[in-house]
Amino acid sequence: MNIPDIDLPRVVVIGAGFAGLKLARQIDTRFYQLVLIDKNNYHTFQPLLYQVATAGLEPDSIAYPVRKTLRKKKNMYFRLTEVNQVKTQEKIVSTSMGELKYDYLIVATGATNNYFGIDSVEENAMPMKTLTEALNLRSKMLQNFENALNINDLDKRLELMNVVIVGAGPTGVELAGAIAELRNRILPKDFPDLDFRQMEIHLIEAAPRVLAAMSKQSSERAYNYLKKLGVNIYTDMIVESYDNNLVKTKSGKEFKTDTLIWAAGVAADHPDGFGDDLRARGNRLKVNEYLQLTNNEDVYVLGDAAYLETKDFQNGLPMLGAVAMQAGAYLAKQFNRKARKKKIHPFKYKDKGSMATVGRNLAVVDLKNSKLGGTFAWLTWMFVHLMLLVGFRNRVIVFINWVWNYIRFNNGLRLIVRPYKKKEDASN
Amino acid sequence: MNIPDIDLPRVVVIGAGFAGLKLARQIDTRFYQLVLIDKNNYHTFQPLLYQVATAGLEPDSIAYPVRKTLRKKKNMYFRLTEVNQVKTQEKIVSTSMGELKYDYLIVATGATNNYFGIDSVEENAMPMKTLTEALNLRSKMLQNFENALNINDLDKRLELMNVVIVGAGPTGVELAGAIAELRNRILPKDFPDLDFRQMEIHLIEAAPRVLAAMSKQSSERAYNYLKKLGVNIYTDMIVESYDNNLVKTKSGKEFKTDTLIWAAGVAADHPDGFGDDLRARGNRLKVNEYLQLTNNEDVYVLGDAAYLETKDFQNGLPMLGAVAMQAGAYLAKQFNRKARKKKIHPFKYKDKGSMATVGRNLAVVDLKNSKLGGTFAWLTWMFVHLMLLVGFRNRVIVFINWVWNYIRFNNGLRLIVRPYKKKEDASN
Repeated sequence: MNIPDIDLPRVVVIGAGFAGLKLARQIDTRFYQLVLIDKNNYHTFQPLLYQVATAGLEPDSIAYPVRKTLRKKKNMYFRLTEVNQVKTQEKIVSTSMGELKYDYLIVATGATNNYFGIDSVEENAMPMKTLTEALNLRSKMLQNFENALNINDLDKRLELMNVVIVGAGPTGVELAGAIAELRNRILPKDFPDLDFRQMEIHLIEAAPRVLAAMSKQSSERAYNYLKKLGVNIYTDMIVESYDNNLVKTKSGKEFKTDTLIWAAGVAADHPDGFGDDLRARGNRLKVNEYLQLTNNEDVYVLGDAAYLETKDFQNGLPMLGAVAMQAGAYLAKQFNRKARKKKIHPFKYKDKGSMATVGRNLAVVDLKNSKLGGTFAWLTWMFVHLMLLVGFRNRVIVFINWVWNYIRFNNGLRLIVRPYKKKEDASN
Repeated sequence: MNIPDIDLPRVVVIGAGFAGLKLARQIDTRFYQLVLIDKNNYHTFQPLLYQVATAGLEPDSIAYPVRKTLRKKKNMYFRLTEVNQVKTQEKIVSTSMGELKYDYLIVATGATNNYFGIDSVEENAMPMKTLTEALNLRSKMLQNFENALNINDLDKRLELMNVVIVGAGPTGVELAGAIAELRNRILPKDFPDLDFRQMEIHLIEAAPRVLAAMSKQSSERAYNYLKKLGVNIYTDMIVESYDNNLVKTKSGKEFKTDTLIWAAGVAADHPDGFGDDLRARGNRLKVNEYLQLTNNEDVYVLGDAAYLETKDFQNGLPMLGAVAMQAGAYLAKQFNRKARKKKIHPFKYKDKGSMATVGRNLAVVDLKNSKLGGTFAWLTWMFVHLMLLVGFRNRVIVFINWVWNYIRFNNGLRLIVRPYKKKEDASN
């Protein structure tokens, strides 16, 4: 790879997600040469992906070009390529653009979908982890409604219209709520010749409650909000297979749908080169309190890819954007301290709370000492997400879209810009 | 096709471009059942496609869902499907969703790229007529810069960076200007390790001047603006072939580039079923002054698909958005008059002038009695295009983007959302 050799330690960061981007922005490149690698040329604001899938936001407003963020930094190189393997012995990353030596490696590769070994789901379900996947979902649902118009058999028609979402974590809950609002308010006006009262939205969760990682109170509130919007909720239910538009569950209940959205699990996603002994739950790489990979002090792992047990989190820190951002900021600071020969501190995750939105005026927020719901929680959710978006332009555009959608009850972006096609496109 | 049979004449419109959409919005559906068919579920504002290709606007802001436009109309059906054939004898259109009888057929299918029979160009060039094509072009140029970083051979690197545009009509001129501005101001900051002073933008035109359809004065102004931005202009030059990244011209001059953009010609695009005797220059269908297809009084042709000779336009009305919009509005009015048994008038095109923008503060406008240039023309151009956009939300978003780009010298949307891949994707 074409990166100049200079007289500074080279830090190679894989992944421009929350953790990698934060680190790249805050590390002092007077002391380090930084090479940031990602397979996309943009950073994705994943918490709002579900709004792209449900026609509330345009993809460009929740993505931000990596190069634009890093413009003013010297000794900073971005490369758009895929990392195939890491050779920790030789301190080399091997990419589609060739090999690159590193002095320090930072693995911030995030997570991908976890299908728990169910092949039929992996093959036929719609995932929701990337911008392309969110656009595919938007296209597919809209295409299905268009095609349903031409089908006389009611069962077949409902198969195209019904949606099953597996996983009632924040993504599943937010999607279910947004799709329900589309069905209740917007789609009937778009498709006067389809009967949307018949369309069903099923949300299936293996745990005993929705938003299982949040407080009982927020979980119950979210349940009620979803019910109010007309979502069918099934807890303690495990999906077994999904073939020929038929969802089978362990409890015997079956669903017919052309659209199964998989939001049930994530697993860490990292290049080859890390032995089994380095991995823990969810394929994550075990790190010490300095976020160094076990037995590899030149390799750091951040965010969803890392597994760090703490007193409060005996199963490892949660795979959340907040953890990733804090880890990125922490590590940049330690690198900057190290360059100045200052003492290095261990990483401490500060839990600032969590939140999820279900719909118009409906959200839940867990803070340390209080649980919020309703309109106030919803406004809080919007404010926090706006502030977290990278780029002032994106904030303005998202804000205008939200105000617009709120006043007009009308998400404007119901476009099938590239038709969804199974397989071929799914890999993009 | 599932369209209810009711006791009103059925008007089938193929194409939701400027002409078809205008007609659909203005026809009185108390007197007619209207079926609008398009292969996309959105209307594209083609005049701004070049800004999507050059990362100035997001695709969603120049597209508008057809269903949203037609919401409040009764007896109005939209179908997302492709028309394969028209059977004028049986008064049937044959689509991928099945057949449909019509009482009146309105062909508003617009135009597609015309490669003048040069296969190598058709195979290897980038067209710029649809939203997908514009996005492909954006992705391809950005990918090429990313890849150029990893290439040491200067010639090979420039092959990836250089751009050749064929056709100096409004699209070619606007693209050349926008790409030159990217090169001059924005890309060098994004890619500090690429030398953009070496990147060349070539604009090739077969006619003796750029913007040949506009006045001599505007043509000269545009030429000077392009020169000022550093575009190489070649008039009276005809492209012969484009293979292995080599553009050959009749005059012998050759160009090496991975990106040849074809903006050199359009031809009417309509389904099978119209005999050769019905066609004129550019594959257009010959119509009479009521826009009726020759010898088929139940078939009307509007916009780019129609060929109508007039006193002022001996080679047929120009293939312009303005003609299409006027034709759509005209025909809706005549249908509404006919329903009320009023007299039908012939179509009269009112030439309100033409314009093109080259870059920041640089545009040309031809009006009947005056030719404008510079900042005033540029502001006029922006105002007119904003007003022509469908949808208030789109206008606001485009306006904000323009103001933003103007103040910050920074088009924000340099995202490769779906990588461009030859063939597979090109057909989407």
